[in-house]
Amino acid sequence: MRLRNLKDKDILVENCDYLIKDGESLKGKWQVEFGNNNAIHIEIGMGKGDYIYHMALKYPNINFIGIEKYSGVIARAIKKYPDKLANLRIINMDALNLNDVFSKEVETIYLNFSDPWPKKRHASRRLSSEVFLKIYDDVFKNKKRIVMKTDNLILFQSSLVSLSEYGYVLKDVNLDLANSEIENVPTEYETKFMKMGVKINYLVAEK
Amino acid sequence: MRLRNLKDKDILVENCDYLIKDGESLKGKWQVEFGNNNAIHIEIGMGKGDYIYHMALKYPNINFIGIEKYSGVIARAIKKYPDKLANLRIINMDALNLNDVFSKEVETIYLNFSDPWPKKRHASRRLSSEVFLKIYDDVFKNKKRIVMKTDNLILFQSSLVSLSEYGYVLKDVNLDLANSEIENVPTEYETKFMKMGVKINYLVAEK
Repeated sequence: MRLRNLKDKDILVENCDYLIKDGESLKGKWQVEFGNNNAIHIEIGMGKGDYIYHMALKYPNINFIGIEKYSGVIARAIKKYPDKLANLRIINMDALNLNDVFSKEVETIYLNFSDPWPKKRHASRRLSSEVFLKIYDDVFKNKKRIVMKTDNLILFQSSLVSLSEYGYVLKDVNLDLANSEIENVPTEYETKFMKMGVKINYLVAEK
Repeated sequence: MRLRNLKDKDILVENCDYLIKDGESLKGKWQVEFGNNNAIHIEIGMGKGDYIYHMALKYPNINFIGIEKYSGVIARAIKKYPDKLANLRIINMDALNLNDVFSKEVETIYLNFSDPWPKKRHASRRLSSEVFLKIYDDVFKNKKRIVMKTDNLILFQSSLVSLSEYGYVLKDVNLDLANSEIENVPTEYETKFMKMGVKINYLVAEK
């Protein structure tokens, strides 16, 4: 699975027919890219893609876009899931630049096992901090919906507070997702964590 | 500690000089009862009184009132803490009747290890359900502030959602109070739970 060779990675990424290379050109035009008016859901930090790929398989009437900052990670996702799905695209970009690629088009943002940035002085780097919530405001179509999963208590606690303070209303909270009745597509980390008995925290927030 | 004898209990309760017998007569006049204009904080479900008594000792410039539904439990609290503190009163009453006893006078409500009523059909009996949040609206002075601690996940999860849906904003959330830096006065249950390694959940919500 490891891609030791930069050339291998480049070839994979170059030849992938569902990796969007110039997301900026699709800003405001994602419905054209997908060829339909279905809802668009994005995952920020898709990692190796388990979650977004299986969500796309499970919900063919929703369009999914996976965002990932690290090209090496994107390459691994492509290696794992080489085939294009009609309702799945991926982009190699930093979430700080989401407003260059989306304009009032997204219905749900998934934040799965995001980097917790546990030190207080790094709190603004968390994907649920006010810095990012402001960015998401213009990414969302009208109703804003964030779905989050994490094993990290610091991230989860601070997310509950920052979402609430920003005006989001919590529609669902669960502190032990594996033992709940909530329908769930696990990420690669989550599958590992669940085997270890680590509790997964989950929330749905809307604004 | 057990009060097997009804007579013992009656004598204790009868002679207690900080148990308020006719709370209704103090509605709107609690400042007169305390003889000052200090903030009033109440704990609903004070149990054997560890929390409210030690809070009263720790914060002499806040007036505390402990509410407890069960007279047997109140009697045990009185037995444990026989001496009157200037800033502590207790009342034997059901929280459903809070509006008979308080009118725009309270600044903080503490809900510590409340009955979780884990079955969905009993959810409205939880002290953080909409039924009670409506009652609290007229108990609070102006700014509403609820501080909650519980080991029960069902209660904590549903409280986060019901408080948020009712318009409260989460100011602080912690999923492992014993290992946090939050200043904490433990209840009798909490001391036991902490020894057993049970994680305590904590929230502060304001409206």
